[in-house]
Amino acid sequence: MDRLEEKTIGSKEIFSGKIISLRVEEVELPNGKTSKREIVKHPGAVAVIAVTDEKKIVLVEQYRKAMERVMVEIPAGKLEKGEDPSECARRELEEETGYECREMEWLISFYTSPGFADEIVHLYIAKGLSKKEGAAALDEDEFVNVEEITLDEALAYVKEKKIYDAKTAYAIQYLQLQEALKK
Amino acid sequence: MDRLEEKTIGSKEIFSGKIISLRVEEVELPNGKTSKREIVKHPGAVAVIAVTDEKKIVLVEQYRKAMERVMVEIPAGKLEKGEDPSECARRELEEETGYECREMEWLISFYTSPGFADEIVHLYIAKGLSKKEGAAALDEDEFVNVEEITLDEALAYVKEKKIYDAKTAYAIQYLQLQEALKK
Repeated sequence: MDRLEEKTIGSKEIFSGKIISLRVEEVELPNGKTSKREIVKHPGAVAVIAVTDEKKIVLVEQYRKAMERVMVEIPAGKLEKGEDPSECARRELEEETGYECREMEWLISFYTSPGFADEIVHLYIAKGLSKKEGAAALDEDEFVNVEEITLDEALAYVKEKKIYDAKTAYAIQYLQLQEALKK
Repeated sequence: MDRLEEKTIGSKEIFSGKIISLRVEEVELPNGKTSKREIVKHPGAVAVIAVTDEKKIVLVEQYRKAMERVMVEIPAGKLEKGEDPSECARRELEEETGYECREMEWLISFYTSPGFADEIVHLYIAKGLSKKEGAAALDEDEFVNVEEITLDEALAYVKEKKIYDAKTAYAIQYLQLQEALKK
């Protein structure tokens, strides 16, 4: 197998923001030549598959500025500094949907855009959902509508591109796989 | 349902690079307050599920600078300006793995990081693979090793975090689902 590593020979911070930062790194390639890599740093995130006792999937509808449109996604949010991912998953589920859960089980983690960013999503399954009294406490710049739909409805949402992001597509396919494995 | 749209009241380009660009947008929130959104623009990408006649999944091993590690992914690449996604899928499959295909079938598209980026991945299934004579022509700053493994081996790669990105995790789960539906 060929050697693949790229050695950093220079690094310049372009931007450091509220959520992401951007660096341009100069690298030495395996063949000795040099190239530039544009790299976005992100704190990481969690996302939650939450299915009610009535077998409804809990989703949130949210405006996504990068795409200038509303999208329907599983509950998700960024990790706070030093926050445990499973605690973050409980917090985001509660804040966005008002649901608590008995158990928060880790399913898989994946990098979302390995070509230019280090964002990782830790995907959890919330078990034993119950509605918490009182309103959900969203971030002050966060506005969501909660929806509860069946797996068939979610598959229709994928076709209609209402569900249109990687983590939610993965989650819906996961639920489809569990159904198929039951038969 | 609550109104969710965010109105742009200001936009500033921070960086325009080889692959991505970065803007900070000032938005008016649904409640009339303002906030900032950090937005990465990306040209979009394709990825290809390619399974040989021997039922081996064709994967590429590649160094990913953002994570400072080697990852194993399905063949993928960025769209050239104005390029048709299915043509791009054929091109990337051939360049990275040396395989041609009889048919390139669209499966799903998804945004990878809707919270901060507009990158979309168009996922295709390559049917009727055949090895093309002559070496693959990679980009000049691209170095990959090709691997062909079974679905069980791929599932082990997911566990070992050799496969560790959203599009590849989705692709492997898709193949798992097809197997489950056959039974």
